[in-house]
Amino acid sequence: MSLQLLKALFYQRSARGLIYQLTKATWSEHIASRAHAKLFFCTTSSHAAASPTQPKTWGSKKQNRSVKLRAKAADFIMSNPEIEAQLAPLRERVQEQGNLVRSLKEAGAAELDVKKAVAELKARKKLLEDKELALTPSVVSFDRAKMEDLLKRRFFYDQSFAIYGGITGQYDFGPMGCALKSNILSLWRQYFALEEQMLEVDCSILTPEPVLKASGHVERFADLMVKDVKTGECFRLDHLIKQALEKLSKAKEATPALQAECEDIIIKLDGLNKQELADVLAKYSIKSPLTGNDLTEPIEFNLMFATQIGPTGLVKGFLRPETAQGIFVNFKRLLEFNQGKLPFAVAQIGNSFRNEISPRSGLIRVREFTMAEIEHFCDPTQKDHPKFGNVKDEKMTLYSACNQMDGKSATQLAIGEAVSAKLVANETLGYYMARIQQFLLAIGIKPECLRFRQHMSNEMAHYACDCWDAEILTSYGWVECVGCADRSAYDLGQHTAATGVRLVAEKRLPAPKTVEVSEIVPNKQALGKTFKKEAKTITEALAKLSLEEISRAEQELNANGQYKLILADGNTHELAKDTISVKHSSKTVHVEEFIPSVVEPSFGIGRIMYALLEHSFQCREGDDQRCYFTLPPLVAPLKCSILPLSNNAEFQPYTKKLSSSFTKAELSHKVDDSSGSIGRRYARTDEIAIPYGITVDFDTLKEPHTVTLRDRNTMKQVRVGLEQVVGVVKDLATARTSWEQVVAQYPVFEQQEATK
Amino acid sequence: MSLQLLKALFYQRSARGLIYQLTKATWSEHIASRAHAKLFFCTTSSHAAASPTQPKTWGSKKQNRSVKLRAKAADFIMSNPEIEAQLAPLRERVQEQGNLVRSLKEAGAAELDVKKAVAELKARKKLLEDKELALTPSVVSFDRAKMEDLLKRRFFYDQSFAIYGGITGQYDFGPMGCALKSNILSLWRQYFALEEQMLEVDCSILTPEPVLKASGHVERFADLMVKDVKTGECFRLDHLIKQALEKLSKAKEATPALQAECEDIIIKLDGLNKQELADVLAKYSIKSPLTGNDLTEPIEFNLMFATQIGPTGLVKGFLRPETAQGIFVNFKRLLEFNQGKLPFAVAQIGNSFRNEISPRSGLIRVREFTMAEIEHFCDPTQKDHPKFGNVKDEKMTLYSACNQMDGKSATQLAIGEAVSAKLVANETLGYYMARIQQFLLAIGIKPECLRFRQHMSNEMAHYACDCWDAEILTSYGWVECVGCADRSAYDLGQHTAATGVRLVAEKRLPAPKTVEVSEIVPNKQALGKTFKKEAKTITEALAKLSLEEISRAEQELNANGQYKLILADGNTHELAKDTISVKHSSKTVHVEEFIPSVVEPSFGIGRIMYALLEHSFQCREGDDQRCYFTLPPLVAPLKCSILPLSNNAEFQPYTKKLSSSFTKAELSHKVDDSSGSIGRRYARTDEIAIPYGITVDFDTLKEPHTVTLRDRNTMKQVRVGLEQVVGVVKDLATARTSWEQVVAQYPVFEQQEATK
Repeated sequence: MSLQLLKALFYQRSARGLIYQLTKATWSEHIASRAHAKLFFCTTSSHAAASPTQPKTWGSKKQNRSVKLRAKAADFIMSNPEIEAQLAPLRERVQEQGNLVRSLKEAGAAELDVKKAVAELKARKKLLEDKELALTPSVVSFDRAKMEDLLKRRFFYDQSFAIYGGITGQYDFGPMGCALKSNILSLWRQYFALEEQMLEVDCSILTPEPVLKASGHVERFADLMVKDVKTGECFRLDHLIKQALEKLSKAKEATPALQAECEDIIIKLDGLNKQELADVLAKYSIKSPLTGNDLTEPIEFNLMFATQIGPTGLVKGFLRPETAQGIFVNFKRLLEFNQGKLPFAVAQIGNSFRNEISPRSGLIRVREFTMAEIEHFCDPTQKDHPKFGNVKDEKMTLYSACNQMDGKSATQLAIGEAVSAKLVANETLGYYMARIQQFLLAIGIKPECLRFRQHMSNEMAHYACDCWDAEILTSYGWVECVGCADRSAYDLGQHTAATGVRLVAEKRLPAPKTVEVSEIVPNKQALGKTFKKEAKTITEALAKLSLEEISRAEQELNANGQYKLILADGNTHELAKDTISVKHSSKTVHVEEFIPSVVEPSFGIGRIMYALLEHSFQCREGDDQRCYFTLPPLVAPLKCSILPLSNNAEFQPYTKKLSSSFTKAELSHKVDDSSGSIGRRYARTDEIAIPYGITVDFDTLKEPHTVTLRDRNTMKQVRVGLEQVVGVVKDLATARTSWEQVVAQYPVFEQQEATK
Repeated sequence: MSLQLLKALFYQRSARGLIYQLTKATWSEHIASRAHAKLFFCTTSSHAAASPTQPKTWGSKKQNRSVKLRAKAADFIMSNPEIEAQLAPLRERVQEQGNLVRSLKEAGAAELDVKKAVAELKARKKLLEDKELALTPSVVSFDRAKMEDLLKRRFFYDQSFAIYGGITGQYDFGPMGCALKSNILSLWRQYFALEEQMLEVDCSILTPEPVLKASGHVERFADLMVKDVKTGECFRLDHLIKQALEKLSKAKEATPALQAECEDIIIKLDGLNKQELADVLAKYSIKSPLTGNDLTEPIEFNLMFATQIGPTGLVKGFLRPETAQGIFVNFKRLLEFNQGKLPFAVAQIGNSFRNEISPRSGLIRVREFTMAEIEHFCDPTQKDHPKFGNVKDEKMTLYSACNQMDGKSATQLAIGEAVSAKLVANETLGYYMARIQQFLLAIGIKPECLRFRQHMSNEMAHYACDCWDAEILTSYGWVECVGCADRSAYDLGQHTAATGVRLVAEKRLPAPKTVEVSEIVPNKQALGKTFKKEAKTITEALAKLSLEEISRAEQELNANGQYKLILADGNTHELAKDTISVKHSSKTVHVEEFIPSVVEPSFGIGRIMYALLEHSFQCREGDDQRCYFTLPPLVAPLKCSILPLSNNAEFQPYTKKLSSSFTKAELSHKVDDSSGSIGRRYARTDEIAIPYGITVDFDTLKEPHTVTLRDRNTMKQVRVGLEQVVGVVKDLATARTSWEQVVAQYPVFEQQEATK
């Protein structure tokens, strides 16, 4: 059977024409690909350093400062020849370096040379992209400090355990943040789990070490840091060096030569390995920026939170760094639940954890976060998608690897064309990209601030997966919010190798076929005689040998009369010719086993939420102290406010009645019968993004009973019957009608004063 | 201001007439009360040992064995004089001991004597309860092994990381388990968060040590264990002793005296402290049951999972053992969000963790679990509830502390009567108890298997909170599934004390009043001269002194001319008369500060789910291999199945059309177009609790197009128009109509065969 398994591991990746082979040697590319494909992996993990871009943070990194959000960048630039003229030399320099990288790789140049060229390419790309943003007219003037103040004041979210001094990188969601998150997740379930009839699962957070060893996280999911030798204070190495060299080159006594040297290192920082970084540290005698003390050698710090499961202290576990592994280890059960049929998709929403060395950028880089992940399992040779036709005309902003290497900007393309042109690897990947876009736009992300950026796979040898990140433009720059990757058979292969449990699917062959089977037949008696107790272990090890190893055994037996078996624990045994023989036979098979491919869309809910808050933050014209969020009714935390015009007792029964009808209709709402003018109370409800507001006023008391209904965004009001208003708000909140339609149907109302 | 704070800490607990004072000395009762009030705390924590009952596991503890579920116990017994006659002597023995406990406490007997009497009371209660169950005729014959087999086979849930050998006490929820859980939670949100307009929050799981020190978890949330000195294997001490003594007393050579001795210890085990347990260990030379090796001394094992936050290794953190603390530490923000008004309730759904020494009983005792907790904050003097009138007639099965002490069984009472009679402490507590019951019955818990058991507060000194557990009868016995406790001001008081941040609310006084204020006025110059750098610390410490301490300072100054100040770090300073003085003044205040009381309903979602699965597990009459779950449509994982009668291609368009209409209507469903007879496919959908099934058959092809609609529980079918069926199922799934109504409206259909 291992023949078929091995065969399954070698398969043609049709769309790109690459042969992909799963071996131990390709692990580093794989984890790198995973790092790229995954949220939160990209900029913080040193193993992701081969990535040519650090797309998440190339805007201003300074927090709590007024920054300008620039959008429609690509569109604007492409249509403005003057700006394009300024960018042209930068584009050229990127393209030149891109070509160099390509030619080095084609010529099979030394790895180090390729790496250096890639680092230079990244630096040139960054210059271009910074310039692009700087030349783009502000579409929105965005004041981050003002928004953060509002978010804190109305407790959308805030630092956890603040009364105990707080913990960086951890946030508590207050009533409005929690409701927004929960509405986003509920829409996500509708868009993905329900629409695609996915299998939703809910797996454990605490994960034993062997699982994360197999996935590669134990060994490689680490950042480099140094410690202050006296205080123990920790610093992320790359951040520290950058900061130190910037300071050095800005010093009065810095020579032009030193400045150039520092700049060169900063540009290439991401491409340097542990030793090279240690050398930089030594060369410039970099000390702790806080105390001036000496620093330790670079230390690899694993980003997983470790703990012990059970009381013995012997079972090491981690808090999961992603939800995906829970799905992979359950693959067999899930395939069985799906009656053995492929393709099928599994969804999971849950918390993951990473022990950041220095969390920052608010919700964007945190230690505890909610993810929504999908693993779509399919036959590697059949990556078409039955519903692709439904989305093929969806226009996407695609920033391809090619464009990135050529210094070009993103292009607009229908996803159908992108797949036809093989720009996007296959229909399944394309289908999810389109659905991700539809979902993000539905919750209120601005279309002009959304792009899909392809990972630059051609910079890396054997890079097998195609991967596109949905990036959203925020005041922190373009932030990777959803990864969408074709991860091939990697994960299931790793867990199969680690456990011996074959995480495979079967398909019927078009016609039965005969296969050659080689196996080692142990002579039990002879083995027992020679090896006593060890015989059982040896027999088991023999049964697990790969086809390759069996053929090596056969050669050794023929050449030397014995075969040297190496056990998993490192012990070796010399097996003489009388103890084993190699048997060849042929067998008719009707089905073929294969490891399914996985397409993985992975959503960072906190990041999406943050971007959405930025995109929907507004101030009233002429009164920049009156801020509000234009969150769409579908995701707004509360759907409606109910405000009596004043504290006149006559209003009370109407307010109560409305509130209970809203509860019955399952519409979240807020009654605000506090004192304060109606305008002031509306401003308060605007701050927490309530899209509609009802006022019970003196006309409500008269027959026919009516109330006013106000729209947050336009501040326009209409007059609606008391009995109808719940239905109208329900239709608005579920997007079955629009405010424009409501205005067309009901009489417009001009605001009255409480003193009437 | 500390005067008001202190005043707030002394308040009359009106319903019981007890004076409650929050001091350090009452901590142990508090944590014990918390242990009682909280799910998952009760049977595993040694600090809960003062509890007179271990209600969760007094049924058979042996898993995977056929057991009988007995229900309607109370009702049946009360109405059966024959059985009552058998129980009478046991009831008498409980009552006798209950009276002894009461009289000991009244007489102010030594703590140890009271403890021993309570342990004996518990033992007698257990005998009575075991007998009660043994005499109750089986209402349902329940085969746990069979149900567990089905749950595993159809992947409702199963052990996590099974391909890696699995981890005890951790479970992954597969598609059906996950959907069931998510439907239960969604109904929970409707019943509580939406209906009561609660503030829902979502707080961090990783919690820094100081927070859990203040809550008492670091010090006391522990079980006792011993280790095998050679292998390191761990055993929970109480389990181990019980097992060893049972074995000892069953041995052939055991004398009657030894047997009696062993039995006596086993009965009193829960009441023994660490030293007493160590003595038992030594006296009977108890060894490891697995190896016969010696055991260590008893070790306190904290049940929280520890980890380090950040890279320094210096910030110790834990995975939260409950979600409640996240709410308490955010109290100020939440009160502000609610515009400073009380009462208000905060809800949180989330995962909590406890590192059980030996998890068991499936979903009932696990290491990682979902809780749904509510903290209702109110003025301690105003515990009435505006909506109590809505629930006052709700009939409840109440097992009061009195009845437990008197050897009586539970009684049926309307919650209104229970509150009027002061059996339940106040309206707010009563309101939540009734709502908990309504919720549990709505999801499908059998009313005859639900009771509310009061904690026996009168067995403990100064036990201030009233607490009732919703217990559900399962094959493991009565399982505590929801705790509902009046926790007074304890939690907010602890965090206030730990942080200095005053977690208090204000209320306007009926009339302004004049209060005496005492404060220490430092002479800054003199202090600076004497204490230099330390002066600042001293001044700060002086500002924090309690009223009591200030009056002590005044006395010392008058008597000795100096005051000995003890700092938090243990250092002391002698302050002479010239450095400080005590100032008395009077002040007119309009508002009063107070620490709100908390009423806390706390739901263990996994336990409720497990109980629900047991209650809804059924086998078809005459075919005990055809099992199914009668889960109500509201919580059933999928609402409908769509089955083509055969794989005839003509059925396909109808199946597809139905599926997409169901998706549009947001109805979860499953298309099963696999081969296999229609009956067999229905049996498969019954197994995963799908309440309704549609068959597309040959009549569907004819005009007017119709399908059959089948009810899982009755297996009856009706014929419904193709266009109407989605609406019918939607109404059924949302409980807007019943199957009986559907049968009355549509023609009944008799099953046809696929071969037609």
